[in-house]
Amino acid sequence: MAAIPKTHRRVVLVRRPPGEPAESDFRVEEAPVPEPKHGEVLVRVIYLSLDPYQRGRMRDAASYAAAVGLNEVMTGGTVGEVVASHNASFKVGDIVEDRLGWQEYAIGSGPSLRKVDPSIAPISTANGVLGMPGMTAYFGLLDVGQPKAGETIVVSAASGAVGQVVGQIGKIMGCRVVGIAGGARKCAFVKDELGFDACLDYKAEKDLDAALRTACPNGIDVYFDNVGGEISDAVLRNINFFGRVALCGSISQYNATTPPMGPRLLGTFVGKRVRAQGFIVTDFAERYGPARRQMGEWVRSGRIKYREDIVEGIDKAPRAFIGMLRGENFGKMLVKVG
Amino acid sequence: MAAIPKTHRRVVLVRRPPGEPAESDFRVEEAPVPEPKHGEVLVRVIYLSLDPYQRGRMRDAASYAAAVGLNEVMTGGTVGEVVASHNASFKVGDIVEDRLGWQEYAIGSGPSLRKVDPSIAPISTANGVLGMPGMTAYFGLLDVGQPKAGETIVVSAASGAVGQVVGQIGKIMGCRVVGIAGGARKCAFVKDELGFDACLDYKAEKDLDAALRTACPNGIDVYFDNVGGEISDAVLRNINFFGRVALCGSISQYNATTPPMGPRLLGTFVGKRVRAQGFIVTDFAERYGPARRQMGEWVRSGRIKYREDIVEGIDKAPRAFIGMLRGENFGKMLVKVG
Repeated sequence: MAAIPKTHRRVVLVRRPPGEPAESDFRVEEAPVPEPKHGEVLVRVIYLSLDPYQRGRMRDAASYAAAVGLNEVMTGGTVGEVVASHNASFKVGDIVEDRLGWQEYAIGSGPSLRKVDPSIAPISTANGVLGMPGMTAYFGLLDVGQPKAGETIVVSAASGAVGQVVGQIGKIMGCRVVGIAGGARKCAFVKDELGFDACLDYKAEKDLDAALRTACPNGIDVYFDNVGGEISDAVLRNINFFGRVALCGSISQYNATTPPMGPRLLGTFVGKRVRAQGFIVTDFAERYGPARRQMGEWVRSGRIKYREDIVEGIDKAPRAFIGMLRGENFGKMLVKVG
Repeated sequence: MAAIPKTHRRVVLVRRPPGEPAESDFRVEEAPVPEPKHGEVLVRVIYLSLDPYQRGRMRDAASYAAAVGLNEVMTGGTVGEVVASHNASFKVGDIVEDRLGWQEYAIGSGPSLRKVDPSIAPISTANGVLGMPGMTAYFGLLDVGQPKAGETIVVSAASGAVGQVVGQIGKIMGCRVVGIAGGARKCAFVKDELGFDACLDYKAEKDLDAALRTACPNGIDVYFDNVGGEISDAVLRNINFFGRVALCGSISQYNATTPPMGPRLLGTFVGKRVRAQGFIVTDFAERYGPARRQMGEWVRSGRIKYREDIVEGIDKAPRAFIGMLRGENFGKMLVKVG
């Protein structure tokens, strides 16, 4: 193990972008490596997770979680190695997962610090299929979407960290699964590698409504929505009676500078008895244990595959994050930090 | 009892209006009074119920119920008197409720024909507080909205057939109840007669968002939506975390000729974990019995009051219906037919 350096690099927020973030909204800076106190550990971050929710934390608005302060380290999930410990539950060398932010070293403490078993799967999966995005897919689909065998599920951002898992769980549940993704490469991966029944390329489809009707001959029973906006409009126009919508994210709207407008579709939910339910994965935190065990089995047995998109170096995080909001990533977006 | 006439009047649909219906979309016509066959009864209609859902039946589009055919009698709930019976379960003089349409006489049969006990309340209530609108309020609020004591409920079209009942049940449940209605007279009635905590006049309020924030100091936990459109936008912008939206109707949109546009609010449901659920009262038909008994007790004991807006003569139905869609009625809209 290398010696602990005196300083490390971290990424702080310096400006709240009204629209699309720019690299100049962040600053990569050198800072002293902190000293762990009693009960704390020092973690060398190995992987940083970039996720769409982090765009919300850049906004100084009421939300389910506090905003990142100006000149504070950007929030983000991390997997790392304990390099110093003043906590009897963790020893040097342990691999741990926590939301320690966009930085190379960080203090871990408190109940959110979790040991990761590297024998189950590569440790990067603690930020992905076996971490927050995997839990989001699991509870969002099963608890919120409540699919029944034989039903049709549509998932947007289908090749993303959450979408890829949603569709594969849907297949395990005996459903027809149709993904929506941007570009032929992503769609081919979703269909050929992940085993979705179909995947629609929203960038190429002239008429997404018609394409959905063809891909979903029995209509759409469950929509797992990661994107909002026009893609969701097309899905919701084709949702079945008693359809369920798991509202997970709205990435198409995160950079909007004016209040976005769209067709009024809530009125169509009345007669169709559609249920739309927003959710946040942490609402299910008490049930992470068994869910993670189930996901671990599925990953080990190859029933659930995953794809990661990894850039190297903490200084690359801002650019990778901006690209992810544009859909430029292909799979779970990670930064290999050290 | 008057002799059964040879002919009667009825109202048929002659044109499907793309936008606001006109009286010329209907025809009042003379037709032979039908003869009941085995198992059937002849009903002299006393009250016809005019309800917003009937606008949907004028449209030739996929819906939860079949459209009214051109030159067919308009659909509508009715209360009437059995004047001839070939069904052992019903005798001449019985008061019955069914959806027999916009006409003076009609054949009743089948499981939907229901005897009304005139000792509980005036028989008109079988079209209102003890009928379909009352059941809509009861199940929509309690089963879909799921209010808890101490929570705040907002209901739109608060003086209407459904809204007035929703708010009063909400008060019985121990909630703060805020209505939204059009005009000072309706708002005064809702507050002073029905006992809502507050009622906002959407026609007079310059800033409905601000008025809602004042009237709902603890935010909005349950929104019972009868109207859709801009009124609902204001409510949904102020809904609480874990708020529930009972989607009952969207009267502001029923006459729209172009697909209506509005702010995209589904994205805000994610972090707030809002649940919006469309429903149709007939989904709860198996539970009408106990619900009607409960409502009957509340009406008899004076805990639930109701207001009716009655026009006389079946020929007045089209004009009254058009006015109701404009919000010109004040209370449950009924036609006294005979």
